[in-house]
Amino acid sequence: MQAKQQSEMHPSRWGDPDRAQALPDTARGMVELVFGLDDRPALVDPALTPSALEPAVLAELAAVVGPDHVRTDDETRRLRTRGKSTPDLLRMRSGDLTDAPDAVVRPGSHDEVAAVLALAGERHLAVVPFGGGTSVTGGLVARREGFAGVLSLDLVRMKRLVAVDHTSMTATLEPGLRGPEAEALLAAEGLTLGHYPQSWEYASIGGFAATRSSGQSSAGYGRFDALVVGLTVATPRGRLELGSAPANAAGPDLRQLILGSEGAFGVITDVTVRVRALPEVKVYEGWRWPSFAEGAAAMRTLAQSGLLPTVIRLSDEAETAINLADPGAIGGEGASGCLMITGFEGTPTAVAAERAAVTAVLADLGGDSVGEAAGEKWSHGRFDAPYLRDSMLDVGVLVETLETATFWSNVDRLYADVKSALTASLGDPSIVLCHISHVYETGCSLYFTVAAKEADEPLAQWHRAKVAASDAMIAAGATITHHHAVGTDHKPWLAQEIGPVGVSVLRAVKADLDPMGILNPGVLIP
Amino acid sequence: MQAKQQSEMHPSRWGDPDRAQALPDTARGMVELVFGLDDRPALVDPALTPSALEPAVLAELAAVVGPDHVRTDDETRRLRTRGKSTPDLLRMRSGDLTDAPDAVVRPGSHDEVAAVLALAGERHLAVVPFGGGTSVTGGLVARREGFAGVLSLDLVRMKRLVAVDHTSMTATLEPGLRGPEAEALLAAEGLTLGHYPQSWEYASIGGFAATRSSGQSSAGYGRFDALVVGLTVATPRGRLELGSAPANAAGPDLRQLILGSEGAFGVITDVTVRVRALPEVKVYEGWRWPSFAEGAAAMRTLAQSGLLPTVIRLSDEAETAINLADPGAIGGEGASGCLMITGFEGTPTAVAAERAAVTAVLADLGGDSVGEAAGEKWSHGRFDAPYLRDSMLDVGVLVETLETATFWSNVDRLYADVKSALTASLGDPSIVLCHISHVYETGCSLYFTVAAKEADEPLAQWHRAKVAASDAMIAAGATITHHHAVGTDHKPWLAQEIGPVGVSVLRAVKADLDPMGILNPGVLIP
Repeated sequence: MQAKQQSEMHPSRWGDPDRAQALPDTARGMVELVFGLDDRPALVDPALTPSALEPAVLAELAAVVGPDHVRTDDETRRLRTRGKSTPDLLRMRSGDLTDAPDAVVRPGSHDEVAAVLALAGERHLAVVPFGGGTSVTGGLVARREGFAGVLSLDLVRMKRLVAVDHTSMTATLEPGLRGPEAEALLAAEGLTLGHYPQSWEYASIGGFAATRSSGQSSAGYGRFDALVVGLTVATPRGRLELGSAPANAAGPDLRQLILGSEGAFGVITDVTVRVRALPEVKVYEGWRWPSFAEGAAAMRTLAQSGLLPTVIRLSDEAETAINLADPGAIGGEGASGCLMITGFEGTPTAVAAERAAVTAVLADLGGDSVGEAAGEKWSHGRFDAPYLRDSMLDVGVLVETLETATFWSNVDRLYADVKSALTASLGDPSIVLCHISHVYETGCSLYFTVAAKEADEPLAQWHRAKVAASDAMIAAGATITHHHAVGTDHKPWLAQEIGPVGVSVLRAVKADLDPMGILNPGVLIP
Repeated sequence: MQAKQQSEMHPSRWGDPDRAQALPDTARGMVELVFGLDDRPALVDPALTPSALEPAVLAELAAVVGPDHVRTDDETRRLRTRGKSTPDLLRMRSGDLTDAPDAVVRPGSHDEVAAVLALAGERHLAVVPFGGGTSVTGGLVARREGFAGVLSLDLVRMKRLVAVDHTSMTATLEPGLRGPEAEALLAAEGLTLGHYPQSWEYASIGGFAATRSSGQSSAGYGRFDALVVGLTVATPRGRLELGSAPANAAGPDLRQLILGSEGAFGVITDVTVRVRALPEVKVYEGWRWPSFAEGAAAMRTLAQSGLLPTVIRLSDEAETAINLADPGAIGGEGASGCLMITGFEGTPTAVAAERAAVTAVLADLGGDSVGEAAGEKWSHGRFDAPYLRDSMLDVGVLVETLETATFWSNVDRLYADVKSALTASLGDPSIVLCHISHVYETGCSLYFTVAAKEADEPLAQWHRAKVAASDAMIAAGATITHHHAVGTDHKPWLAQEIGPVGVSVLRAVKADLDPMGILNPGVLIP
């Protein structure tokens, strides 16, 4: 399966325009009942202000990357404007293109990236590295003040599988490869990365690394930062190459300083990742739990027994009832409880053994298997939620997600506090759903989906709810983000999470690697 | 089992003086044959120069930590002088105490550590954090130049189990707890850390964290840096608290910047670690392989199949023949090949299942089980090698270890190159032994033990060999250290490994957190 080029995405919607759809009939009735339908006018492509860049500067850029790879046309600039958070979509739908880059520059190699950075330093241009454009935290909105212009550094030309080491089971990938492209290249070698975030069809290898992405199969394959054994980075200070061994004691692990650096310390120009053999078998199954708490406890037992399957997710009562609304899938019309999805990938022998062990534990703890149909349904629709969000926005329903993580002993409190904060802020009519999708021995993530009737000022409406939820996370001692990264949106809470000394360290590293501050200014660093 | 206080260690030997011994008869004949015996004169406690600190400064320190906890007597200072590398022991044996601290200060809390750092900044004193004193890379040798004196910041009073979270399976430990002390406190809660480096009987929790330690059970429990979920650090810039979740995407993972910081960025005042249930069963087994390469390939297969046991180690032909010389243990007098140790820890059910799976793989690949006796023998003597080194030094045989790691496809080259470099440098008579003791999906460590007839200038003799081996590691693209850390000894090669941009980042972080440069000056940062 090969997704279309990012350049074919619509600027104010998610993904492939051919897959855009009106609200499905199955959902339309419920949405009308809860929120009412408020069809929004058809969207037009909003106009841009002209590029601020002088022709001489554009010529200098063209001398580095070639004239075909410096673009200032409206369509290209529009498609590199912001990311795909709901506020991003709302701004775009309202015609606000103030954050558009002045030019889109497409380097073809590490050396071209380095040369663009050097030129940007000389000409006082801000540089926003661009991979899949799927940020949901404002990671693509560079501060313009103090700069002569903003470049979108589009890594679309850097899509090679640079090296494969079948003995070490590693592969070196360029940053512009999107999820399906990387998997296709690896599949030809009999390998898989196994990294499937919801944004997988569009997000890029460089973005996975820069944002500490975590995929739906994280229990089996690990978070993206756990897959990375090496990195090459172009910084204004020079080239940084890391990854002399799987692990070492040669000082702090600087790989973990680049992972999560969100383009603010440098541009990742290749990533060496641990790979696995392509699974021969993939099987997904549904389980019903009487309550969210009991399902979560079962997840904890699996994690602490070393028995995690490849995929494990658990929806709360509300998400089970609404988002996975197919009563037949979890035990018949009117069945209550919470749906868990388990997935197993690997050789037939390994899958059979792991599935048997997991089944024994879950059944013993009070779970009821509802069979593979529920698992297949989840698997089939696993990348589709952002399309549904667009359909909801089309009828005046604001939909957004946010997520956090904490240690097991704090999960109940965090769940209750964030849910309360969102519900109180959004008022009626609104819906707050939650699932657990990333599980560790010591804790797990919580992922919230919110729907509310769009107010007159939806940006302010959502901002208030986001602030309330984020404050609740930090007050509970949890993280502001498990896998969505910091961007511009999470900066105030990052500052609280890591404290003034942590912020000081980030600033010191930024000042050292990017002394002129040209890289993604305003992103990440509080 | 409770090891003695560090203060009872002999300054120029390893560990408990009561366990010091003459070269065992079993080894004496072979040592005489290979190297000759050259008994060294009995050691005397060398004299120190007086403390450089003014009484007024000592009084200020005493006002912070209490008068009992500022020590300037010779014995206390001698016991905080350098670590336990062979060069450290040779210097001490020769009476060189030039690196002795001027005072040993023992804070009792995070706030006292912070107050000592503030005072040290005012009085221009270098501060060397001291846990177990087991560094083998010069990690306790602070640069004196530019300072009014050197303090050893002994964390011996900070030995609390601060918190246990049985739900999240985490525990918060103070840095002065040594391995056995931490395990005893956790065992009372039914828990284990499972971290057993060779230095375990003396090394401390703070040291494990500061040096990215890796234990003999790393395959089952993980490296120490993989166990850490939270840290509190006292820096001259202020208090740094990290660890809001098992994992997150809230910017770079700053925990991984403190892990491996070797006291140069701050003093770790507590560590929150993932713990496991105390294993009900521990079983160790020996396997014989026709060659080191075949044994290593079997380790790789296990790692890449997700079937690693709790412990897995493999000695090369030379180490099997010499160090584990008990022909009966691996198949009778004159049996050749390589000895592998596998170990399984956990519940009876889990151990039985894992052992069966591992046994099937190893037997299929051509390994021969030699039973549990060889495993028990390894387990029994697993912390004793440093005592044997002292006995060898007593008869004029220089013994030292060094280690590295790389990806699987590079193991053969790295092994050959480092072995050649050591052999060529040390000449005859010398012995070079190697084992693999830490295994990952993508690679493994190589741990070398060297013995050579002591030359007239043994420090220079060893320095030449160390340089040759280290150059070979870097030339092979491997790491300068998998688990011994950087200290002062590895700095030139760290600079090559992470390059000038990596060095620049370390310096920037150092300058930010420790602007006066008082923390372990000369250690870690090239």
